[in-house]
Amino acid sequence: WRSSENPRTTILLSLLYLALLTFFGSAVLLAEMHRHSQQTHNVHGFLTILMLTSSTWMLWFGWTSAKNKKIKMYQDHQAGANWLKGGLCLFALATLVLDCLTLGYYHELHQCTSIVVTSFPMVQAIFTVIQVSLLSFYAKVCIQEKQSLNRFGLMHTLATNILMWMSVVLDESMKQLEEIYDVQKRKMNLIETPGWHTNSCVCTTDLCHIFSEGAAYLHPFNIEFSLFSSTMLYVIWKNAGKTACIPAVSAHTKGTRHINGAFIGLILGAFAISATFGVMISFGVLAKSPSTVPEALRIYYLFNSVLLSAMFIASVIGIVTCRLQRGFLFDDKSKSVVKSLDITLLMGSSCGPLLVSVFSLVAIFFLHIEGNLYILDLCFSLCKTIQVLGQNLFITEALYSEPAQTKTTISSDDMVLSMSQDTETENSQNGICNVSTVCGHRWSFSENDASPRSSKTLVDSDAPKNLQPRNNVTDTSHSRQMAKEERKESFFRTRRKILQNISILLICYNISVWILYAYGTRPHLVSQIEQSFYGFTLWVIVVKISLPLGIFYRMHSVASLFEAYCNICDSAAY
Amino acid sequence: WRSSENPRTTILLSLLYLALLTFFGSAVLLAEMHRHSQQTHNVHGFLTILMLTSSTWMLWFGWTSAKNKKIKMYQDHQAGANWLKGGLCLFALATLVLDCLTLGYYHELHQCTSIVVTSFPMVQAIFTVIQVSLLSFYAKVCIQEKQSLNRFGLMHTLATNILMWMSVVLDESMKQLEEIYDVQKRKMNLIETPGWHTNSCVCTTDLCHIFSEGAAYLHPFNIEFSLFSSTMLYVIWKNAGKTACIPAVSAHTKGTRHINGAFIGLILGAFAISATFGVMISFGVLAKSPSTVPEALRIYYLFNSVLLSAMFIASVIGIVTCRLQRGFLFDDKSKSVVKSLDITLLMGSSCGPLLVSVFSLVAIFFLHIEGNLYILDLCFSLCKTIQVLGQNLFITEALYSEPAQTKTTISSDDMVLSMSQDTETENSQNGICNVSTVCGHRWSFSENDASPRSSKTLVDSDAPKNLQPRNNVTDTSHSRQMAKEERKESFFRTRRKILQNISILLICYNISVWILYAYGTRPHLVSQIEQSFYGFTLWVIVVKISLPLGIFYRMHSVASLFEAYCNICDSAAY
Repeated sequence: WRSSENPRTTILLSLLYLALLTFFGSAVLLAEMHRHSQQTHNVHGFLTILMLTSSTWMLWFGWTSAKNKKIKMYQDHQAGANWLKGGLCLFALATLVLDCLTLGYYHELHQCTSIVVTSFPMVQAIFTVIQVSLLSFYAKVCIQEKQSLNRFGLMHTLATNILMWMSVVLDESMKQLEEIYDVQKRKMNLIETPGWHTNSCVCTTDLCHIFSEGAAYLHPFNIEFSLFSSTMLYVIWKNAGKTACIPAVSAHTKGTRHINGAFIGLILGAFAISATFGVMISFGVLAKSPSTVPEALRIYYLFNSVLLSAMFIASVIGIVTCRLQRGFLFDDKSKSVVKSLDITLLMGSSCGPLLVSVFSLVAIFFLHIEGNLYILDLCFSLCKTIQVLGQNLFITEALYSEPAQTKTTISSDDMVLSMSQDTETENSQNGICNVSTVCGHRWSFSENDASPRSSKTLVDSDAPKNLQPRNNVTDTSHSRQMAKEERKESFFRTRRKILQNISILLICYNISVWILYAYGTRPHLVSQIEQSFYGFTLWVIVVKISLPLGIFYRMHSVASLFEAYCNICDSAAY
Repeated sequence: WRSSENPRTTILLSLLYLALLTFFGSAVLLAEMHRHSQQTHNVHGFLTILMLTSSTWMLWFGWTSAKNKKIKMYQDHQAGANWLKGGLCLFALATLVLDCLTLGYYHELHQCTSIVVTSFPMVQAIFTVIQVSLLSFYAKVCIQEKQSLNRFGLMHTLATNILMWMSVVLDESMKQLEEIYDVQKRKMNLIETPGWHTNSCVCTTDLCHIFSEGAAYLHPFNIEFSLFSSTMLYVIWKNAGKTACIPAVSAHTKGTRHINGAFIGLILGAFAISATFGVMISFGVLAKSPSTVPEALRIYYLFNSVLLSAMFIASVIGIVTCRLQRGFLFDDKSKSVVKSLDITLLMGSSCGPLLVSVFSLVAIFFLHIEGNLYILDLCFSLCKTIQVLGQNLFITEALYSEPAQTKTTISSDDMVLSMSQDTETENSQNGICNVSTVCGHRWSFSENDASPRSSKTLVDSDAPKNLQPRNNVTDTSHSRQMAKEERKESFFRTRRKILQNISILLICYNISVWILYAYGTRPHLVSQIEQSFYGFTLWVIVVKISLPLGIFYRMHSVASLFEAYCNICDSAAY
């Protein structure tokens, strides 16, 4: 009988613990949903206990890690990128503001809230602060010591985040469903029971209304905070016990990102975002009264169709440009946890929008309804489907194509040429082994290049020495070659600019779609086509499953596109 | 611009194709469910088209593969085990019988079935035969040529199987729900509308009833056929493009499995299975009338609690024995697709039973109901939870612990000793480097050992040569050592026997639980506790999600336990 510190058993048990805790929490949350009560002791008490225990573990982990000098030895440098930490801090800040507003709201309604409910935002604020500090300091760490305890701690915190997310999503869903039921009741000319609004637990003061409405706008940020934290915790869990040290990305790639290359993309993107706000407001106003609902839907569908088809076209151009420039240099071998998790999350969350749009398409297709609105709905669903497919492909191509290991300094006097991997494939295609044409394909500045490929670059950098004499002898061929390379180089610069613009454009457009999803415009629940085809309950379930996924997909696309943009900038930095 | 034959893009696109097709199919299926019609043109037509196109691809693939001599070069020998193929053939046979029965049923009702519906079982039979032949011949293949087309073909066939599965599950669910609604109506003393049964599409002849009831008993086999095929197709898809040839398991491990070692396990298991039939029949009889429902539930809960706690105890003994015998020789490095898929499927499907039992536990815990029945329900849910956890752990330990690479021939004259990896750890624990005590820990017969470790065994097999002289010199110590080793060996033989018995016992018990789940006994839908806590709709959704997973979990456990049993037998074969 050996010690029970066996990695596989611990991994299994911690996964099962996550499943059990998540199921337990969802049972508690769903039971409350069934009772249609939003502020309850069970849920708040349960989540408070979870947050307190998670905070205790995080404090303990931080304390032992701070003492441990060896913790910096094993790190996954691809985990916990700076932009991720920045995003997390932003969402945490929004969550803290939300907590203040919620506390104020509960204070206004103090006559009907208990101590458990009132203390909830305070505990959440403490939990948020501790979690942000932990993830900022230890996102890259590969845990080596006390693995079993730390794995359980990570899974406990992960479950807490998932359940916090679920609780917010369910709350929001309940509110929306109640609004829809209200609309349906009003349609049936049912007069609301007067006893309903004389409830003592309803906002009466202006301050209370401000608190309540402000909180509603901050909930999406809280949702994102939970999801971001979950993925980062999962990466730490996945990295635990790893000893293979992944080399740090060299520092010289930083600071080379300038936005001026992507001016057109920024302008177009900003235009789309501002138009989104206009559409959102007009939809909100028009969807209020039943007579103008078709008008609201028409605006929404039209705007979205245009936006999504623009995104699709941009993605297609991006894919084509990607392939033109890089010639399929996929680093299939580098199986980093972070990158494959990124792609898996992107694919998984894209199932949300795909599910809804395919269901819409089937409904419209089989119902054979004619009319302006239905064609627009069909158009919208079709655009959404192809947009998601195109964007997934573009992000994967941009992320997995060769990053900036080879860089160029253009000063025509001292040029260091280096052959990249392309040479082999290109030679085999052309059949002629003309080194001078080939080496222009990728410019390399092999000084202080700390990339994993540096050894290869060093080996290849002998090639220019062999070239130099030949260039001196045939001067005309050299100048011709120079002109050719300059032409090629300007060609590549244009292509990179296109890719940069497309990335920025797609980031802005995804933010637009995210704003539309996250704030109030729910055309799926208003539109009657799908409801009549699938029945109200089934359709609401489908929408409710796919909406949070869709919101997460947009957020995650923005993050991945930003990474792709950095990738492109690094490779384009002169 | 290069050729579009890029593996990553193809993988992505085929995955997205699977998602789109599955969503499209589920939309069609769910829409029909909403209309409460069981025999419809859309669903049958859609599935027929899917099956015909899949069959076309499979025929084409089989034809090109038969011509291709190189197809046998790249094979994953861990995929498509013989027992898997045997199981598949069995389920296919049941599906063919089911098709005959369905055809007969449709023939009896020919006045109200169309040609699309009538041809459905025939198409299904053709599809089943083609699929079984394909999977029998090419389950191990690593596709190298025309990867993109074949990946799409595999995903198309996979989607067909998933949708066939979904269609059967939805049909079954609808029937059960209708039964429950009928019971509820009868409770409310609503007299059934007489027009409902004068429908022309209802069985009138005895033959028709026999067809209908026979088909109902064969549906679970059809479900399993779809799931088995799906996993095998997924393995082929995952293996496509792999060139690293995984070595074949040497033939000498076969034929050494004898069942006589596990006599006690078999007897106890057979007893459990026969008792299961008794309980199933009595539950079916008692649950018919509302007055005896509590009695039926009591019997069901009691029987299950006993069965599940016995399984849990067996699993715990198994885990302890596993660790005692093998001393944690996990081959963490061998990341075969099949094994990790097995474990992932086991973990994933175990979420079904866990979900239901945790939800039940929460409901009983928060409702604070007292009473005989509720304590039994609590007991049942608790037993189920710990049983699933224990069984998952046991299967993982048994599957991942060292298989039969090292074997023993006991004939006290010529003994070949070999040190296994244990030595290092054990030495470091004991602090004394006594080779003769250590080497008895694992006996090895390194002749014709074709395992990946054979090189290590060959290196280690020099050790006995060093030992041999020492044994000749000190003869008393040799005989003492012999006695010690014989004692140890008999000890290990007992342990192996225990493991064999436990595996067989768990196989039988899992079959019992599977029979209970698959055939008609649905206590979760009859019991009122959870319905009152979560509401009818939510609870039905939870049960409907977890039941198919639970059935698959039991089937998959049986398969994995059988593999574990073979593992144990191989390592115990003298």
